Amino acid sequence: MRKKTFRRSQKKKIGAPPGTLIHVGEQKEISVSINLIDYDAENLLEKEIRSVEECIESRDRPTVSWININGIHDVNTIESLGKCFDLHSLVLEDILNTEHRPKIEDYRDYIFCVLKMIQIAPDGKLHSEQVSIILGKTFVLSFQEREGDVFDGVRQRIRKKGGRIRRMGPDYLAYALLDSIVDSYYTVIERMDERIEAMEDELLLKPEPEDLEKLRLFQGDVNFLRRVTTPLPTLVSWLQRIETPLVTEDLGFFLRDVHDHAASISDSAENFRENVYGMFDLYVSSLNNRMNEVMKVLTVIATIFIPLTFIAGVYGMNFKYMPELEWRWSYPVLWAVMIGIVVGMSFYFKKKKWF
Amino acid sequence: MRKKTFRRSQKKKIGAPPGTLIHVGEQKEISVSINLIDYDAENLLEKEIRSVEECIESRDRPTVSWININGIHDVNTIESLGKCFDLHSLVLEDILNTEHRPKIEDYRDYIFCVLKMIQIAPDGKLHSEQVSIILGKTFVLSFQEREGDVFDGVRQRIRKKGGRIRRMGPDYLAYALLDSIVDSYYTVIERMDERIEAMEDELLLKPEPEDLEKLRLFQGDVNFLRRVTTPLPTLVSWLQRIETPLVTEDLGFFLRDVHDHAASISDSAENFRENVYGMFDLYVSSLNNRMNEVMKVLTVIATIFIPLTFIAGVYGMNFKYMPELEWRWSYPVLWAVMIGIVVGMSFYFKKKKWF
Amino acid sequence: MRKKTFRRSQKKKIGAPPGTLIHVGEQKEISVSINLIDYDAENLLEKEIRSVEECIESRDRPTVSWININGIHDVNTIESLGKCFDLHSLVLEDILNTEHRPKIEDYRDYIFCVLKMIQIAPDGKLHSEQVSIILGKTFVLSFQEREGDVFDGVRQRIRKKGGRIRRMGPDYLAYALLDSIVDSYYTVIERMDERIEAMEDELLLKPEPEDLEKLRLFQGDVNFLRRVTTPLPTLVSWLQRIETPLVTEDLGFFLRDVHDHAASISDSAENFRENVYGMFDLYVSSLNNRMNEVMKVLTVIATIFIPLTFIAGVYGMNFKYMPELEWRWSYPVLWAVMIGIVVGMSFYFKKKKWF
Amino acid sequence: MRKKTFRRSQKKKIGAPPGTLIHVGEQKEISVSINLIDYDAENLLEKEIRSVEECIESRDRPTVSWININGIHDVNTIESLGKCFDLHSLVLEDILNTEHRPKIEDYRDYIFCVLKMIQIAPDGKLHSEQVSIILGKTFVLSFQEREGDVFDGVRQRIRKKGGRIRRMGPDYLAYALLDSIVDSYYTVIERMDERIEAMEDELLLKPEPEDLEKLRLFQGDVNFLRRVTTPLPTLVSWLQRIETPLVTEDLGFFLRDVHDHAASISDSAENFRENVYGMFDLYVSSLNNRMNEVMKVLTVIATIFIPLTFIAGVYGMNFKYMPELEWRWSYPVLWAVMIGIVVGMSFYFKKKKWF
Amino acid sequence: MRKKTFRRSQKKKIGAPPGTLIHVGEQKEISVSINLIDYDAENLLEKEIRSVEECIESRDRPTVSWININGIHDVNTIESLGKCFDLHSLVLEDILNTEHRPKIEDYRDYIFCVLKMIQIAPDGKLHSEQVSIILGKTFVLSFQEREGDVFDGVRQRIRKKGGRIRRMGPDYLAYALLDSIVDSYYTVIERMDERIEAMEDELLLKPEPEDLEKLRLFQGDVNFLRRVTTPLPTLVSWLQRIETPLVTEDLGFFLRDVHDHAASISDSAENFRENVYGMFDLYVSSLNNRMNEVMKVLTVIATIFIPLTFIAGVYGMNFKYMPELEWRWSYPVLWAVMIGIVVGMSFYFKKKKWF
Repeated sequence: MRKKTFRRSQKKKIGAPPGTLIHVGEQKEISVSINLIDYDAENLLEKEIRSVEECIESRDRPTVSWININGIHDVNTIESLGKCFDLHSLVLEDILNTEHRPKIEDYRDYIFCVLKMIQIAPDGKLHSEQVSIILGKTFVLSFQEREGDVFDGVRQRIRKKGGRIRRMGPDYLAYALLDSIVDSYYTVIERMDERIEAMEDELLLKPEPEDLEKLRLFQGDVNFLRRVTTPLPTLVSWLQRIETPLVTEDLGFFLRDVHDHAASISDSAENFRENVYGMFDLYVSSLNNRMNEVMKVLTVIATIFIPLTFIAGVYGMNFKYMPELEWRWSYPVLWAVMIGIVVGMSFYFKKKKWF
Repeated sequence: MRKKTFRRSQKKKIGAPPGTLIHVGEQKEISVSINLIDYDAENLLEKEIRSVEECIESRDRPTVSWININGIHDVNTIESLGKCFDLHSLVLEDILNTEHRPKIEDYRDYIFCVLKMIQIAPDGKLHSEQVSIILGKTFVLSFQEREGDVFDGVRQRIRKKGGRIRRMGPDYLAYALLDSIVDSYYTVIERMDERIEAMEDELLLKPEPEDLEKLRLFQGDVNFLRRVTTPLPTLVSWLQRIETPLVTEDLGFFLRDVHDHAASISDSAENFRENVYGMFDLYVSSLNNRMNEVMKVLTVIATIFIPLTFIAGVYGMNFKYMPELEWRWSYPVLWAVMIGIVVGMSFYFKKKKWF
Repeated sequence: MRKKTFRRSQKKKIGAPPGTLIHVGEQKEISVSINLIDYDAENLLEKEIRSVEECIESRDRPTVSWININGIHDVNTIESLGKCFDLHSLVLEDILNTEHRPKIEDYRDYIFCVLKMIQIAPDGKLHSEQVSIILGKTFVLSFQEREGDVFDGVRQRIRKKGGRIRRMGPDYLAYALLDSIVDSYYTVIERMDERIEAMEDELLLKPEPEDLEKLRLFQGDVNFLRRVTTPLPTLVSWLQRIETPLVTEDLGFFLRDVHDHAASISDSAENFRENVYGMFDLYVSSLNNRMNEVMKVLTVIATIFIPLTFIAGVYGMNFKYMPELEWRWSYPVLWAVMIGIVVGMSFYFKKKKWF
Repeated sequence: MRKKTFRRSQKKKIGAPPGTLIHVGEQKEISVSINLIDYDAENLLEKEIRSVEECIESRDRPTVSWININGIHDVNTIESLGKCFDLHSLVLEDILNTEHRPKIEDYRDYIFCVLKMIQIAPDGKLHSEQVSIILGKTFVLSFQEREGDVFDGVRQRIRKKGGRIRRMGPDYLAYALLDSIVDSYYTVIERMDERIEAMEDELLLKPEPEDLEKLRLFQGDVNFLRRVTTPLPTLVSWLQRIETPLVTEDLGFFLRDVHDHAASISDSAENFRENVYGMFDLYVSSLNNRMNEVMKVLTVIATIFIPLTFIAGVYGMNFKYMPELEWRWSYPVLWAVMIGIVVGMSFYFKKKKWF
Repeated sequence: MRKKTFRRSQKKKIGAPPGTLIHVGEQKEISVSINLIDYDAENLLEKEIRSVEECIESRDRPTVSWININGIHDVNTIESLGKCFDLHSLVLEDILNTEHRPKIEDYRDYIFCVLKMIQIAPDGKLHSEQVSIILGKTFVLSFQEREGDVFDGVRQRIRKKGGRIRRMGPDYLAYALLDSIVDSYYTVIERMDERIEAMEDELLLKPEPEDLEKLRLFQGDVNFLRRVTTPLPTLVSWLQRIETPLVTEDLGFFLRDVHDHAASISDSAENFRENVYGMFDLYVSSLNNRMNEVMKVLTVIATIFIPLTFIAGVYGMNFKYMPELEWRWSYPVLWAVMIGIVVGMSFYFKKKKWF
């Protein structure tokens, strides 16, 4: 129902020493696959990797090595990668734990970055996946929970000889990955935008009690989106300011660009939140409007008939001496009077816009 | 319905490398036109430009060259301008993408600034247009989505020999453009002010369910205005503090002035927002007041007739031994009693201010 | 209705070059009058000035010259004063434009300060007036929209030989003017305080639909007060920190004092705002309480009579075989039963505190 | 009704020069009494002082002199004390004006501090009193509006030879006074805590319209408490950071301790505020719940009887040919049917939990 | 009912000199027990301590000494420990006072840290316990209110020879304790998460007046959790930045890790708060929905029967000349008409979705 972000399953680790490697989260992929792309301006090597040791060679070459790991539930693979690239045990722990908030950390020899990737399933549900990126002097490691196609654009650009990405270092590659993740949020935002529009129309025209539940579910999604996107601009601007040889100065303008995108996404998420609050109010107002209308009409009907019933009651009394009862035209006159009352009251209520 | 600011159509760019030049937004003008005004204190040259190469000459002269481009959907023109003035590909991308938030960026050799211009159509709808301004050492480039008249005042001032604008550099020209954009917000704010006043009166006097929809639309406009104007004061004060040879010290007082205006506009937009919230409350309260009044009157009518109907019911009973039935004056007395009850209750309710 | 602060009539200036001198605002006084007080510890000169040139002489003397201008709609006077004291054209523009927010600006040779003076008319309406103060090396200029008596206290103190004000420089004079403006807010706050108290009592005891309108008007006043007083503490503390030869160090304690007052006034305005919100809630709750009470009483009446009417209906049926109808004491017994029902239900409802 | 904190009676001072000594506030004590305690580690002198001149001697001694003044409405006494200890006229003005917000100010030769002491009267009303403390090189002056017993603990500790307070300087004494004032807030907070608990229970179990008024009064108290306690932590942390020879370094840990207490008190006040908001909501919800319950029961009763009344009405019709009227068992059968309807509907409503 | 955090029982200390040792809080354990673990990479000594003096020896050894005290109500023990380890009297006061907010303080020779440990009892109630940790050059002191098992994991790790904790100093031990406390919050958060989910479902499906009380209790718990967890990230980041020889640089990454956890916990608590607010709204909306539904059905029933009753009333009139009364088929026709009215109205209301 609600997104229990960033905390499920942490429990089983309580008491374990920090740095203990346990996979936390759903196991989303059966087999783990590792791809290596090794390139510089001239050369390009792309291959599937079986054992982690194959990475060592390309780690030591001055070319840019991009190692992408799909599936992070295999603790052994992660651990041997960690040894191979000399990663801190806390980094490995964070990679395995998919309940993290987005963050970027500087470990001197490399920069470690955790992000969330979001997809909207055809049924409108949000699916999120954690992506960890490690930027070293000559390599970039990326860890995905399952094989995805967000990085395909980057791969294509690498394959094209002479592109900017081929001429630049691993920091530009890391930036490109970051950029394609940030870009992928736009799809989600567009879809949610359409959903909001549809819901607002529905709430305005025919609000129903069930909409309350729908709204709550949607609010959960919006809150999740906010929590995932709010830290983004800060993270990127941290990257802009950090003093590290790993990020060259040339990247400045590009980081500013991705910062702009991140800020605009985080803005949209914030707006969604206000929209949702507005929709709750709209729902209440709209339902109230409808309810009031119904009650008003019913009350008006009751109010018109009550005096009539009284009149009928009067002439149902059994007094011996009631002159009207004897009169020849009493009955039709009474009907006329009663119809007159109905017409008069209807007219009056109509004029007062009471129904 | 809602303004989908700053995100529509970004989708088609996902996966493309950063700096890819694609026009994002509505195509608002058919033909692209470029005007050049080249001036110093003594000389003034004003001409329509056909091909971008004509700009090169005036770029290299020490005079101030103002090149105004109307229509930004022609990617080729923008691209050749970019090459001619040595603009970063991210700048060109931002010029073409009309979904940006207002921002100012320092690219060392030039300052790049994106703003929104707002107009209110006669039917009260808000139309926005993106304006990009680039301030270089000897030139100012301005990009509008379509031909407008906001900059006409500046043109007039340039044509007048001896005016302050003729004696000062391109930074003052850029300031003058900024100032006329900021000034143009005042019209919008004035119009929205009148609209708020009219709506408040309507909500107070005759609230109707349809007002809910109207309020929502207006809220969308106010939010759009806020998003567009909120960054303005920060941007201007950033310009005030920036250390760049492009902005001379003499501009200080003028920037402070435009900062004041921007702050006052952003203030107004913020106030509008509170006004809109207040109007929602007003709407609910006002509708409730009316509803309550109606219900109260109807309930009072029902309450007066219920005891009367009971009395009539009593004397409609068929008991054999009911002394009142036989009595000669029962019927008129009963009428007197019933009228007395009506008068008494009306008086009581009136005194208690129940209707 | 609502205060359209800080923006009315700016429109007519759009497109004009910055620094254009146009009077913006209501013309509140017919004739412009200028007073000069020129003093040091020993001497005192006080005179009405006809032409601006008379000021030049006292400007160049080392004594303190206080020139007070009542009525600012005469652009020529302001302009020649500007030339005489070498004021920036933006300063003159700001003096003429009465729609400004309070601000203090340092123009190196002088400090320029715009404030609002507020008065409450006997009918409870707020009137505001803009006061501009310019503090130079040997002079203080003050511009009021119309002749007022707020500065009279300061004049009296200057006339008294040996007072502290006579021994100190123009910065102390400017402080004294500032202080008397800030002090004058207290009257307004006191009056609004009484108004709030009266309204709260009214809302609690006999809330009426008209109070909604009253509350909105009052909210407008409070918002105006807030906008005018909120910047005050910041402005004064800016004065405390500024490094300028125009403000001597001796003024420190006095500025801290006026800062305290400004902060306390701005606090009160902020509290008023919360009070107003509270009053809206109070109004709604109070009206609801009353409404509920009415509805409850009416419903209780209806509920008591409905069973009785049913009973009367039963014995109004025309069945041939209804033993009760024949029985001698049916009718009085039925009355007894019905009275019993009324008493019983009343008792029950009373016990349950339903009315 | 509402607390008119920090502003009452300021009016009479408007126009007076700053530093004018006028007592502002209620006169809470008839006679002014002055106590002197003069001590160092070895010696202790305690006496009642008649004329201010008696202080001079102990002022000049290197021992710690604590002069406590009860009753501040006697302007002359304050003025001569001011002369004796060379206090700034603004300080004297602040001592006399009991409408101040808590503040600490550094006057180089002494530190001036204004605080509020709060007491809860047995009837639950808040009484506040202003306490001013001046910390000089060898003396501490404390001004109370009336004789109180909050400082008695400090006096006791001074009298005990060998206590820490006797070994330390005037800064520790000032700290001890501050500490005992801050501690005294705990009583108030405890009492208000109990009051909140009692009110919440009342609101939940039997909400009544009168509670609205009670809540408002309580909210006034809470707001007063907040305004008085919110500045405390900032003031103390200002004392911690200030560089002055008057506060020795040894005091650091003690100031941190009092800062903790102040922060916890200010926290509690902030919590009270949320509690009060919560109680307003609770009141509205609780009253609504009760109201709804009442309306529901009454409506159910009406709804059950309306069909019965209709049935009775049917058999009260005077048609010549109504077979049921002639049938022998019609009447008892009808009763059975009607009782059946009542039971059925009750059962149905009960099952649906409608009452 | 509400959590009276951080203030109960402080009262009895008012007036006492600062640093007075009084146990403030519930006495949660009868006997006080002290455990000593003394270790370095090679050696490990674990023993129960009877008298405080036994600690002195291990205090002076260069090994890491961890002294854990269960039960803090025995003032004498605490006092002699204080003397033994040369602790400031304010520290001892803080250890004894269990009403403190979480804080970390630097006393140069040692760092003093107060935290709250939270447990959820099987009945869902929150129990909190104060833990104080003192980190010295060669020792770590930890004070718990009663014997708990949160530190058992740390003990196990110490016992395992060759573990990281055995190779590192007392700062790592203190970190490990901090980490296990922070980790223990996850259990609480998980439990509250489940509770929220259960309550939301309940509120949505069958809201009842009693839920208001439940919600308030839960809100109290959430507020308590927030107050306890909100300061955590700030405290840890303060530890990260502090310059002290007590915290070695190696601890940096580990502190960043615990900071992440603290921030995520504090985030969750903040989310809970929004959830609770949302649940209040949900409760109100949901109850209103149900109420409205009931009222609508009942009103519809009444509205259908009122015209029927009127018709019956008409033919109950006793006019002499009413042709319908004589007609043979009047009665069955009338029934047909009345059934027709019921069906028609039901159909109409159904179509309009009024019930």
